[in-house]
Amino acid sequence: MFVVGSGGVHLVDELRSLGANFIDVEIKRFPDGEKYVRIAGSGERAIVLSSTFYPQDEKIIELLLLGDALRERGFEYLRLVVPYFAYSRQDRVTKEGEPISVRAIMRTLGLYYDELYVFDIHNPETLRYFPGKAVNLSPAKAIGNYFKEKLENGVILAPDHGALGRAKAVAEFLGLEYSHFEKRRVSPTEVKMYPVDVNVRGRDVLIVDDIISTGGTMIKAASLLKKLGAEKIYVSATHGVFSEGAIERISKAVEEIAVTNTIPTPVSKISIVPEIMKLEASHIV
Amino acid sequence: MFVVGSGGVHLVDELRSLGANFIDVEIKRFPDGEKYVRIAGSGERAIVLSSTFYPQDEKIIELLLLGDALRERGFEYLRLVVPYFAYSRQDRVTKEGEPISVRAIMRTLGLYYDELYVFDIHNPETLRYFPGKAVNLSPAKAIGNYFKEKLENGVILAPDHGALGRAKAVAEFLGLEYSHFEKRRVSPTEVKMYPVDVNVRGRDVLIVDDIISTGGTMIKAASLLKKLGAEKIYVSATHGVFSEGAIERISKAVEEIAVTNTIPTPVSKISIVPEIMKLEASHIV
Repeated sequence: MFVVGSGGVHLVDELRSLGANFIDVEIKRFPDGEKYVRIAGSGERAIVLSSTFYPQDEKIIELLLLGDALRERGFEYLRLVVPYFAYSRQDRVTKEGEPISVRAIMRTLGLYYDELYVFDIHNPETLRYFPGKAVNLSPAKAIGNYFKEKLENGVILAPDHGALGRAKAVAEFLGLEYSHFEKRRVSPTEVKMYPVDVNVRGRDVLIVDDIISTGGTMIKAASLLKKLGAEKIYVSATHGVFSEGAIERISKAVEEIAVTNTIPTPVSKISIVPEIMKLEASHIV
Repeated sequence: MFVVGSGGVHLVDELRSLGANFIDVEIKRFPDGEKYVRIAGSGERAIVLSSTFYPQDEKIIELLLLGDALRERGFEYLRLVVPYFAYSRQDRVTKEGEPISVRAIMRTLGLYYDELYVFDIHNPETLRYFPGKAVNLSPAKAIGNYFKEKLENGVILAPDHGALGRAKAVAEFLGLEYSHFEKRRVSPTEVKMYPVDVNVRGRDVLIVDDIISTGGTMIKAASLLKKLGAEKIYVSATHGVFSEGAIERISKAVEEIAVTNTIPTPVSKISIVPEIMKLEASHIV
């Protein structure tokens, strides 16, 4: 049984079409801005689903209220599915005095939830901050399937070495070659990117990352690939946290951009819902 | 040493004038909406101060991030002062399936803070949800001092029986009489209010409550008091959670309205800062 928060509403139709069951939820806001939630149903186990995109703080508090309501109603085991996990990039202390923000959120959600499922979290190491079982799901097959027909003899590239695992997962699913970009400082003000150990001339390329925000890196990479003689250039990511105008800028620079629907955007063409359905199947009620 | 969050900034000048010490805090927002905090300082003990008025969810998450940053920096004992505590009116399950929202927030803050101080919380019983020491501070003396000169031979009234303790505290501090209103349904659509066992004719009256939102009750009470021959009518509350236009409507109906500065409003003329300073004095560093 799914309990869907504000950040999961965009996934409901597809979940329903795949046979998911739901516990109805009422979510509203009082005139003073406080959230109000109410669940209509009872049971022992539930899967709470909500991505925590903007306004992320409201969605996080809502998850606490839903957790409290479910516990109050007697639910004993709660799975939490947060396809896009807010604060996941604040995963280390870069300057003294900073928090590890993702830790604070994970610990907080751990007060109410037994298990946590996320998609392609920025730093999977951070899942250890969740007190219960925490699983990082991969959208690699979903992304691979979407681009399968478009990438005969293609290459999968990660925008940096840290994202190589993502490129590898998509490439292995499709049986394609993969590599990554490296950055080299060529002058005090200029950094050059280049793809490592791979010939892109005459080939189609898919660049995959976890999050796209401004798209600056993607646009730079695409421009370089064109100079190197690449044919069609595709861009994909798990989470489309697009800043103002980013989709338009990227769209102009590449053949196509497609991200998953962990966050609803105009280019969220790849669905993670089948992966979420598997969680219901494995959740013995 | 005080660490001040977004909901405490309006109290800083007065705290400083009374000799408070601060640990500098940087608080900003990333382009995607995530909050970023950073504390500049170290030590063993700190008092984190932030009221959680609108946008309350952001202020709550900020308190978690501040707590995480302070613990990361080695602080061992953290006092939390939340003059206005959001979600405090969601203190019981009225309809099946609701959370006890205030419990969820208290448990969450308890992950990072050892002690909690609030002012005149809607239901003091809810403080038991905070895992550490939790104290409800009274603004009765501050409110009493503000109205002292205006209330010779005055009466203090609570708008309902539940608020009687507040009226009593202010009245005893000022050596005045106190009572409360009761409501009686006179027809299926009409409820009449009347003050219990007190003669207001020719006397000045102060009505005190914990929270004023729309001001509807206060305006109704003032109108009735006028009919009963009261002289000047004053209205006060700890927390001014005013809805649109409420201050104007109440101001027209009474001699004066004054609330405390747990929430900054145009009529937050009564300061709770001296009470907060006592917490620093008692906080052995």
